Amino acid sequence: MGNGPLDVVGIGNAIVDVIAHAEEKDLVDLELTKGAMTLIDAARAEFLYEGMGAAIEISGGSAANTVVGLAQLGGHAGYIGKVRNDQLGGIFHHDISAAGVEFPTPAAIVGPPTARCLIFVTPDAQRTMETYLGASVGLGPNDIDHEAIRRAKITYLEGYLWDEPPAKEAFELASEIAHEAGKKVALTLSDSFCVERHRESFQKLIHDHVDILFANEAEILSLYQAKHFDQALQQIRNHCETVALTRSEKGAVILSRDEVHVIDAEPVETVLDTTGAGDLFAAGFLFGLVRGHGLSACGRIAAICAAEIIGHFGARPEKPLDQLVADRMGSGALG
Amino acid sequence: MGNGPLDVVGIGNAIVDVIAHAEEKDLVDLELTKGAMTLIDAARAEFLYEGMGAAIEISGGSAANTVVGLAQLGGHAGYIGKVRNDQLGGIFHHDISAAGVEFPTPAAIVGPPTARCLIFVTPDAQRTMETYLGASVGLGPNDIDHEAIRRAKITYLEGYLWDEPPAKEAFELASEIAHEAGKKVALTLSDSFCVERHRESFQKLIHDHVDILFANEAEILSLYQAKHFDQALQQIRNHCETVALTRSEKGAVILSRDEVHVIDAEPVETVLDTTGAGDLFAAGFLFGLVRGHGLSACGRIAAICAAEIIGHFGARPEKPLDQLVADRMGSGALG
Repeated sequence: MGNGPLDVVGIGNAIVDVIAHAEEKDLVDLELTKGAMTLIDAARAEFLYEGMGAAIEISGGSAANTVVGLAQLGGHAGYIGKVRNDQLGGIFHHDISAAGVEFPTPAAIVGPPTARCLIFVTPDAQRTMETYLGASVGLGPNDIDHEAIRRAKITYLEGYLWDEPPAKEAFELASEIAHEAGKKVALTLSDSFCVERHRESFQKLIHDHVDILFANEAEILSLYQAKHFDQALQQIRNHCETVALTRSEKGAVILSRDEVHVIDAEPVETVLDTTGAGDLFAAGFLFGLVRGHGLSACGRIAAICAAEIIGHFGARPEKPLDQLVADRMGSGALG
Repeated sequence: MGNGPLDVVGIGNAIVDVIAHAEEKDLVDLELTKGAMTLIDAARAEFLYEGMGAAIEISGGSAANTVVGLAQLGGHAGYIGKVRNDQLGGIFHHDISAAGVEFPTPAAIVGPPTARCLIFVTPDAQRTMETYLGASVGLGPNDIDHEAIRRAKITYLEGYLWDEPPAKEAFELASEIAHEAGKKVALTLSDSFCVERHRESFQKLIHDHVDILFANEAEILSLYQAKHFDQALQQIRNHCETVALTRSEKGAVILSRDEVHVIDAEPVETVLDTTGAGDLFAAGFLFGLVRGHGLSACGRIAAICAAEIIGHFGARPEKPLDQLVADRMGSGALG
């Protein structure tokens, strides 16, 4: 671990993605909930993997994807999350380190294997995610690197952590440390089913502790059990300082006190796999914030990063994000 | 293992590919031989992986890629190769089975881990491969499934096997079984450096035992230490029944006794990663042969399959090969 200032520390489930094409029929046959992230146990993971097509493996994990994107933009990032000391854990460690992200959390040497997320990508580019959390649920308060949190302008948490009590404790501890140090806390709601599982505690958390919130349309509707996007928008405005609401091809709405920005989606040639679009949106937005850009520019950088990821498989960028942003917005956007 | 007829059984090194972008400078810094496949030991593999960028993992192995492509075209394929019973071995086993290929070789339960090939892809789409053979060198004569070889119209071998004595023995045993059963033996020369290491024994092998030979330009030049493609072409004509010589964007030349066909390369939108182009060329060509097509049609199917693979990362097809071939040549090509 270094000791200079950090822009963002992400905390999340450390996961290797296993990605394969699937037909709509496969989802029905395997009884999968399309578009959702479902938690599965080891036996179900084995069963589903058997039924899955030939796959590719790419390091993933929502908050991990975000900090990797941020590092690619030129930001200084850290990550806290738990793998096992097995081959997939080695892959996760290598990939996040190779991206220039500090990753101080020691691997577990006993217990379940490194987490994996089986991702079924249908021809409409939607992803259906079945996650075996494995070693990642071993993340607890003891894994929180206090110094890293204090060094970071923003601590970024994924809603998925809320599913496991020790991870939730780690989450709360990290928020406290960040705020005591005068830093910001950001949260992504992660998944509408995750929001359903924890609606009330998320509402309280956001109201009490979250400075910057990321949510997509389904998530924010679920949070307030709202029927229309605008209803949910009016509610969240009063509960959180800065909010970025993403709406796929409809673009995004950024709210911060009296400011409102409506950002168009960046054009994409071919939508191949939407895995990671939200994670990379957050990367671009947080990068803009820590570099002191206005919210409109933050939204634009975010949209460019999100667009890069949906043109290929996997949630880690293939093209240099800093060049993409500089090409479209001028190099000042990286300053 | 099934018991119906097989079109092709491939025998090769069972390898998981670890693929990352690299700059020309990285190859120089790490002292890599650009465009070659170099064998490395465990320590060098660890060192190079440290210096490698964030990667993706995809099942690979030259002959394995070929039989997966053949299965995707609708052929019946088997594979013989050695993995360890570790996570990467599980991935290899899953992917080749999910592609519909019979894979009877038991995983090693002791010894080195599953083989991996670190592939550095430079901006010109060339791949530089550093292979740690790990468990795959455990392949020996005892792993040869006699019945599978007898059931197959063609036994397809990769030249890479020639590097390890027990694999070479397995190779020779498989050739004998195939010929005794009245079946054909095909060989790919794999790599010009591999040819250099074994030039004389390859010449003798081809002359004595190989019915169908695949080679690219560098390999066939190296085999005969020829300066010009045409020189090598005149020599190989007299040494092997059927020969397919590939020349990247210049297309391919197919020779069989008095027949000669010059096949144009299939147009490709973006050349991203040439890993597996030769393997998929062989898949298409062998598929055409076992379906009884003329050599010109075999070459065309081969060119279509090779073009699919170089537009994306990895050596396993992303698009359904049968549809691609049917779209461009009519469904008769699959009959």
